[in-house]
Amino acid sequence: MKDIVKKLDRAFNPRSVAVVGDKREMDYMWLRSLANFQGRLYSVQIDEKELPGIEALGVKNYFSLLDIPESVDYVIVAVPRAVAPKIVKECIDKKVGGVMLFTSGFAETNTEEGIRLQEIITEMAREADLNLIGPNCVGIFNPRIGLCHAVDQYYGDGGPVGFISQSGTHATYFSLVGALNGIKISKSVSYGNAVVLDCTDYMEYLAEDEDTKVIGMYIEGVRKGRQFFTSLREIAKRKPVLIWKGGETEEGTRATASHTASLAESPLVWDALIKQCGAIKVDNFEEMVDTTKALLYLKPTTGARVGLCAMTGGQSVVIADAFAKAGLEIPLLSERSYQEFASFFNIIGSSYRNPLDISSNLIPMDNIIRCMDILNEDENLDSVVLELSVAFLTRIARFIPIFLDELIDALALYNARCNKPFLTILVSVHAETEAIEARQKLVERGIPSFPSFERGAKALKKVVEYYKSL
Amino acid sequence: MKDIVKKLDRAFNPRSVAVVGDKREMDYMWLRSLANFQGRLYSVQIDEKELPGIEALGVKNYFSLLDIPESVDYVIVAVPRAVAPKIVKECIDKKVGGVMLFTSGFAETNTEEGIRLQEIITEMAREADLNLIGPNCVGIFNPRIGLCHAVDQYYGDGGPVGFISQSGTHATYFSLVGALNGIKISKSVSYGNAVVLDCTDYMEYLAEDEDTKVIGMYIEGVRKGRQFFTSLREIAKRKPVLIWKGGETEEGTRATASHTASLAESPLVWDALIKQCGAIKVDNFEEMVDTTKALLYLKPTTGARVGLCAMTGGQSVVIADAFAKAGLEIPLLSERSYQEFASFFNIIGSSYRNPLDISSNLIPMDNIIRCMDILNEDENLDSVVLELSVAFLTRIARFIPIFLDELIDALALYNARCNKPFLTILVSVHAETEAIEARQKLVERGIPSFPSFERGAKALKKVVEYYKSL
Repeated sequence: MKDIVKKLDRAFNPRSVAVVGDKREMDYMWLRSLANFQGRLYSVQIDEKELPGIEALGVKNYFSLLDIPESVDYVIVAVPRAVAPKIVKECIDKKVGGVMLFTSGFAETNTEEGIRLQEIITEMAREADLNLIGPNCVGIFNPRIGLCHAVDQYYGDGGPVGFISQSGTHATYFSLVGALNGIKISKSVSYGNAVVLDCTDYMEYLAEDEDTKVIGMYIEGVRKGRQFFTSLREIAKRKPVLIWKGGETEEGTRATASHTASLAESPLVWDALIKQCGAIKVDNFEEMVDTTKALLYLKPTTGARVGLCAMTGGQSVVIADAFAKAGLEIPLLSERSYQEFASFFNIIGSSYRNPLDISSNLIPMDNIIRCMDILNEDENLDSVVLELSVAFLTRIARFIPIFLDELIDALALYNARCNKPFLTILVSVHAETEAIEARQKLVERGIPSFPSFERGAKALKKVVEYYKSL
Repeated sequence: MKDIVKKLDRAFNPRSVAVVGDKREMDYMWLRSLANFQGRLYSVQIDEKELPGIEALGVKNYFSLLDIPESVDYVIVAVPRAVAPKIVKECIDKKVGGVMLFTSGFAETNTEEGIRLQEIITEMAREADLNLIGPNCVGIFNPRIGLCHAVDQYYGDGGPVGFISQSGTHATYFSLVGALNGIKISKSVSYGNAVVLDCTDYMEYLAEDEDTKVIGMYIEGVRKGRQFFTSLREIAKRKPVLIWKGGETEEGTRATASHTASLAESPLVWDALIKQCGAIKVDNFEEMVDTTKALLYLKPTTGARVGLCAMTGGQSVVIADAFAKAGLEIPLLSERSYQEFASFFNIIGSSYRNPLDISSNLIPMDNIIRCMDILNEDENLDSVVLELSVAFLTRIARFIPIFLDELIDALALYNARCNKPFLTILVSVHAETEAIEARQKLVERGIPSFPSFERGAKALKKVVEYYKSL
């Protein structure tokens, strides 16, 4: 077993967890988040007033970590900052597998007291080789064993995506939004001020983790840049690594300093190094979600030539502009394709040059699939994109008998035999609820769906670039 | 009355409308869309089989336009293309106020027959000075009189935004999405192939229309470029004009040719001319919605210095990066503001340099408003932006008694006394339905809300640039 696995495995796959300092004022958010934890759960709380609430949750409380009658793999600390050194000391004495400090108020406050306390816990942990996660974070999410840091996170069922985030918000939101987008987490970690363990450690750990096939990262700053990029270069050869850098602007770095006490780094240097290492740079949360989804669900391709199909003429212009602006090619089709289209396609109110506008070719529904099959067979194309407008389908369903569920069934069969990457764009228009539902149905059937032409185009471009770089 | 008003007013404000060729196969979409039309509605259909269906809708049918026993202000034509010349002839003989051809299959098909038919109707209309709208479009939407082109459009209640769109999809979608975003239409027109009337005519008409305070346009091509830009320059001085150009890429222009037979135009020349004329260039549908909303609801400012407030630390980084990347400034606050913050703001888990992270300052709720008031008073700032995370508020509502509805009430009062433009960013995360509802509530209270940091930042930047250009 690699050293990093040996070092962090107890914390990421704990069989026993202790929460220190959970309280009613926070609605016992930590203990409640761990309601489905598959191992043994303990509370450490010295305030007698809190004990009935903890007991009501069915959790055994102790007055000190050291009193827990078994070894503890992972500790969650939610005490006031002044108490943090005492708890860190107990963790060292207890030889825990890892300790995560939700507690904040350290160097990120830029106060004497905060800086001093951070130095104390850092020194203690380093000296004792304690796996200290944070402080100022929400720590590990391992859905397979019900190790959650929010009550609305899923459990029991994990996925292939590892996520490393300096921000607790982004770690939480990525797990929640990911679940709606067919992106399930293997293990994730939010790590805040990174005083002992840094993103490099977590990345190296997830690189060895068999459940993790793709690694996403939100980073505000890195303490040992050279070590990080050396590791990244090696790991990106084995698994796709997506990096979103927070604090890319001067104003953003002011925020990272206040958030996790991270230091400014030149965005240009970062961009260049990420690219050199073969990792994938994403610019924001949406791109992280979209690109991860594209990596998980699209068949690999290094070709940039796209066949585009829209449901109306106006959207055929938009889809072409969006994909061309993203740096993809929209070539003319092969002569054979044009001959096939000419044999059945109604050009009144529609067109098939590429992009296609199929508005007057929706019945029978086989027509849509026939168009998709022609694009799949066309040797001028590397991938196929279909706009599915729920708003349009709903509006015409009264007189054109095309129903979304049947269409999704047919597209799932198509996707199974299609040898090119196939993706859909599903714009909400005013039917947001229906669109969200339809996108979920599509991804459950293995078809990735994006909420705008631009987002779909960017995601496809990113994965094409990634496969080209390999 | 200006000539253009005299010319087009009957078509835009008809008291009598005739639909030619509506049929069961299309579920009588035209007659049904006009169910709430406030004037007199007639059908013209010669197919006996269709008559019971038309009668069932309570609409009187005639076998020819000429048989209708009164003058007809606006005619909607949905006949096959080969019949179009005959109907255009009847419109001329009937001296109608305007005729819109939903009928397609003309030059945009690039077929001999389509080109020939287009030439015939064009020539006929020009010679007779007939107001021909289209062909290949959905025509006019005037909600105040119930003149709709889709069954799901609103009626009875109009707004201040005129919309001119070469695409029927974009005209329809803009009215529907607009309604969810506090953007109501005064009058809109979709005009397809523009063989007789072109966007310049419609723009000049809406420039004179008192109900129209803002004009949005989706244009694929302009027949008389010089005339268009001369008009635009003059009109943009009086009302904000937003322009979205479809076919900005080579591939996009291939689509515009197939869509409305529009010719390619250099995007660089367009960009430069739009800017010179003082109009606002937008790049896609979302930017059209966002920028229109910003124009309608934000107090005017020419200053780019923004005070930013996020609900968590991770989002404080994102909001700063997004607004800085959009070209806005996020300055440090005044000494007075910092002194005020120091008097009450809990910096453990939060910060107030700008951007603010107010996660541990949410109770009492007055704290949030107090922060907003400080930003409003700060002389270093020109506008104020607040992130409202429904997901975050929902998650913490169990233990922090902040409820969105109360917060919206308080923010509406704040917005009323705030002398700076104030906008909110409301990211959906996984609570999409709740977020959509909250955004609607906000805009109903006069507070514009954007679904991502990037979109809010771009919209603010566009209106700042616009007011600077005046």
